[in-house]
Amino acid sequence: MVRIIMHGCNGKMGQVITGLVADDPNAQIVAGIDIADNRDNGYPVFTDIKKCDVAADVIVDFAAAVAVDALLDYSVEKQIPVVLCTTGLSDEQLAKVKECSAKVAILKSANMSLGINTLMKLLKDAANVFAPAGYDIEIVEKHHNQKVDAPSGTAIALADSINEARGGEYEYVYDRSQVRKKRDKKELGISAVRGGTIVGEHEVIFAGIDEVIEFKHTAYSKSVFAKGAVEAAKFLAGKPAGMYDMADVIG
Amino acid sequence: MVRIIMHGCNGKMGQVITGLVADDPNAQIVAGIDIADNRDNGYPVFTDIKKCDVAADVIVDFAAAVAVDALLDYSVEKQIPVVLCTTGLSDEQLAKVKECSAKVAILKSANMSLGINTLMKLLKDAANVFAPAGYDIEIVEKHHNQKVDAPSGTAIALADSINEARGGEYEYVYDRSQVRKKRDKKELGISAVRGGTIVGEHEVIFAGIDEVIEFKHTAYSKSVFAKGAVEAAKFLAGKPAGMYDMADVIG
Amino acid sequence: MVRIIMHGCNGKMGQVITGLVADDPNAQIVAGIDIADNRDNGYPVFTDIKKCDVAADVIVDFAAAVAVDALLDYSVEKQIPVVLCTTGLSDEQLAKVKECSAKVAILKSANMSLGINTLMKLLKDAANVFAPAGYDIEIVEKHHNQKVDAPSGTAIALADSINEARGGEYEYVYDRSQVRKKRDKKELGISAVRGGTIVGEHEVIFAGIDEVIEFKHTAYSKSVFAKGAVEAAKFLAGKPAGMYDMADVIG
Amino acid sequence: MVRIIMHGCNGKMGQVITGLVADDPNAQIVAGIDIADNRDNGYPVFTDIKKCDVAADVIVDFAAAVAVDALLDYSVEKQIPVVLCTTGLSDEQLAKVKECSAKVAILKSANMSLGINTLMKLLKDAANVFAPAGYDIEIVEKHHNQKVDAPSGTAIALADSINEARGGEYEYVYDRSQVRKKRDKKELGISAVRGGTIVGEHEVIFAGIDEVIEFKHTAYSKSVFAKGAVEAAKFLAGKPAGMYDMADVIG
Repeated sequence: MVRIIMHGCNGKMGQVITGLVADDPNAQIVAGIDIADNRDNGYPVFTDIKKCDVAADVIVDFAAAVAVDALLDYSVEKQIPVVLCTTGLSDEQLAKVKECSAKVAILKSANMSLGINTLMKLLKDAANVFAPAGYDIEIVEKHHNQKVDAPSGTAIALADSINEARGGEYEYVYDRSQVRKKRDKKELGISAVRGGTIVGEHEVIFAGIDEVIEFKHTAYSKSVFAKGAVEAAKFLAGKPAGMYDMADVIG
Repeated sequence: MVRIIMHGCNGKMGQVITGLVADDPNAQIVAGIDIADNRDNGYPVFTDIKKCDVAADVIVDFAAAVAVDALLDYSVEKQIPVVLCTTGLSDEQLAKVKECSAKVAILKSANMSLGINTLMKLLKDAANVFAPAGYDIEIVEKHHNQKVDAPSGTAIALADSINEARGGEYEYVYDRSQVRKKRDKKELGISAVRGGTIVGEHEVIFAGIDEVIEFKHTAYSKSVFAKGAVEAAKFLAGKPAGMYDMADVIG
Repeated sequence: MVRIIMHGCNGKMGQVITGLVADDPNAQIVAGIDIADNRDNGYPVFTDIKKCDVAADVIVDFAAAVAVDALLDYSVEKQIPVVLCTTGLSDEQLAKVKECSAKVAILKSANMSLGINTLMKLLKDAANVFAPAGYDIEIVEKHHNQKVDAPSGTAIALADSINEARGGEYEYVYDRSQVRKKRDKKELGISAVRGGTIVGEHEVIFAGIDEVIEFKHTAYSKSVFAKGAVEAAKFLAGKPAGMYDMADVIG
Repeated sequence: MVRIIMHGCNGKMGQVITGLVADDPNAQIVAGIDIADNRDNGYPVFTDIKKCDVAADVIVDFAAAVAVDALLDYSVEKQIPVVLCTTGLSDEQLAKVKECSAKVAILKSANMSLGINTLMKLLKDAANVFAPAGYDIEIVEKHHNQKVDAPSGTAIALADSINEARGGEYEYVYDRSQVRKKRDKKELGISAVRGGTIVGEHEVIFAGIDEVIEFKHTAYSKSVFAKGAVEAAKFLAGKPAGMYDMADVIG
């Protein structure tokens, strides 16, 4: 039974994870941390992480960037590994994450879903077959109309995954409307569609002569990311210090 | 039996139409016009349109922009309607087309396929239901890696069709990577994907709350456009002077 | 302000509608009916519909088939229109629905979403263009792995909508693995995919010569149906006796 | 320069391959075999394979099943490897293929495209991640309305590829309309859509909790299979006796 401290337990993702873990025979939330202690989660909630003295195997974090420094300090001090899901960290914080990973196990990924991370792995293999055979690679992602950044971090991560496998030969192209010219072999186009409440859709296209191969991931709700975080927590418990990501969880 | 003069008969589209009409019991190519008279099509070919004295009901044109002026003069003089499929006309030529249409029937469309033109009609109805209900509209088009313009003329025509039905309320957006902001209700995003030999794919998306409706058209070969041109020819034969488009053919 | 009685208020859909109406300035739930009175909804809940004496403009029903007879009696007696969303009614109950509709307004649809019902309308127009031109029509639907019936009622309703527009010329085909023969023009294939927690996806395909047109609807959550039910309730309030469906709501 | 004998050179696929090889600097057709010697291909054509005495490195076969026995005899006698693409072989012929492969290199695959064969490999990896995590697997294939068999051999090959990786745990299901029951974990549904001139589309779906991953292959023309056959020919030239398939070509 993996004992979890849920950092950001009363936020949207914290609550989804609380629900998921309640149905999981192999995990248990033993404490929560949140600035708001406004509901009964069935476990003790601490508004100050320093006050939390509950024994645990791993911390799952879905909080706010501002809370990440204290979290890292706590994790190092108590020697509890942390699955770090909060995004939007500053460069200073990213440096601190790296530094702390020398002392405790930290897992961090652009996207927490099992599907996306498996896709990332398979795309490397696909790129190594299709790219040398002259296929063009393009990505289309779709998200809800409240998302402020484009393309999505996940689309970039998918492209990076391909680019890494191909020795960085691709240049990302976000707009073709301003030029009149044929596509260059070294382009990798990334298009961002925005509308409604679309949770997240990513499609990677390999287009050859009279043949197209597509890899597509559709998330129907945020619980996909919650589920990935719980799997990551089970994996990370007991691991030695170091930086990990979801690729390690998939194995 | 509709008698057709094929303008540009020895080009790629001219040949596809020649093949199609050979199997059509209701149409017949009675003459061809082409600068190259390099094969036996089973009908006489004239390298100079002025020399063509064959009686016909309609001209189908898939040639080069440079040949369009002589074609228009001929069509007015002989009083033979023309299905004008050549693209890339200059503003002067477009003005001349309009002028000639006062004297002879001319049919011109952004896309000659039955599917795209039917979609254009249905999209107006769809937009009038979904737009007032707050759904966001986006378009994704995919074409081969030799296409120099983006987005495609057909994608723009689909967007225009929607915009016309909605009183011009939409502003087209081709790139979201340069700003960090939420989607505005008045945006209509158009993304262009390029790769391989994709003939042409157009997808129009209406995204609402937890619901997405997609209308998608896929062309598998250029014969789709040839077929539309032949249907247009049958429709246009015998019609009075004026500007027509594929919407008239669908009726 | 439309006053709603929520029949089946403590079920899954009743709760989704309760949430939606709470945010709707033009509607209000004034009472609920449910065999279980196990939570505070902010409105009175009656475990016996006969005891409900709250003045209302319309009833929204998402309960169990067994409760529909008493609901219909109540609706006729109190002269309150009813949006009837419960499925799986017996033939006797369907007959009773029809009978009661002579005395009070009743709205009933195979699918309550705005998207599906708009699609149904557009598909009639599409079928009338594509079917005479020789295009084949097929439907693919995808649902979660707990659904016991196949194909979905909505897939059948989409097919019926097309078939109605075409004079009933189509025969539905659910399996092609048992015969070795070419597709007949009068077939309309319906395929059912089952997996995971897919809420509901319906794709109607018109396949012609080198051209495919697809109409696709994706529901991301059940709130799509809740939203449609609320729109239907606003429409039905004050309407004279008769049978209505979502096509009337779209107008 | 690989020297090819094209078996079935005047059939549809033989002609496509003839065109492809003409543009290929590393391959050359040195002779053709066909019962019809009705055109000038730029290489000698033999109506009787026994008469063909041209030196070659490999035979590419896209003929009729009836011609396969003589082809195998020839290939063994001359010790020329053969890429065997003709389908619909009898059990006796399949046994003979196996027998001959002890004496000469023979390559045979359910589908000759690079895309499908790469997908087959990646699907094994995907299945080994998603199946243990409880994802359901389904396949949808789409083909033209003249195809007599369903599901396609390629769809079955994709399913077999997954099933092999998973120890044969899946049972294929082609129709769900005759039963009212929830999907069993061990089902792998295969749906066949037929319409128009669709060349071939295969979609493999992994559906989990609030997450769907799709792998899709679209063929736009038969030249995809021609191209695969030519790649296979280059690979097979000079190989020792044995059975090979496209997986070996991809490496």
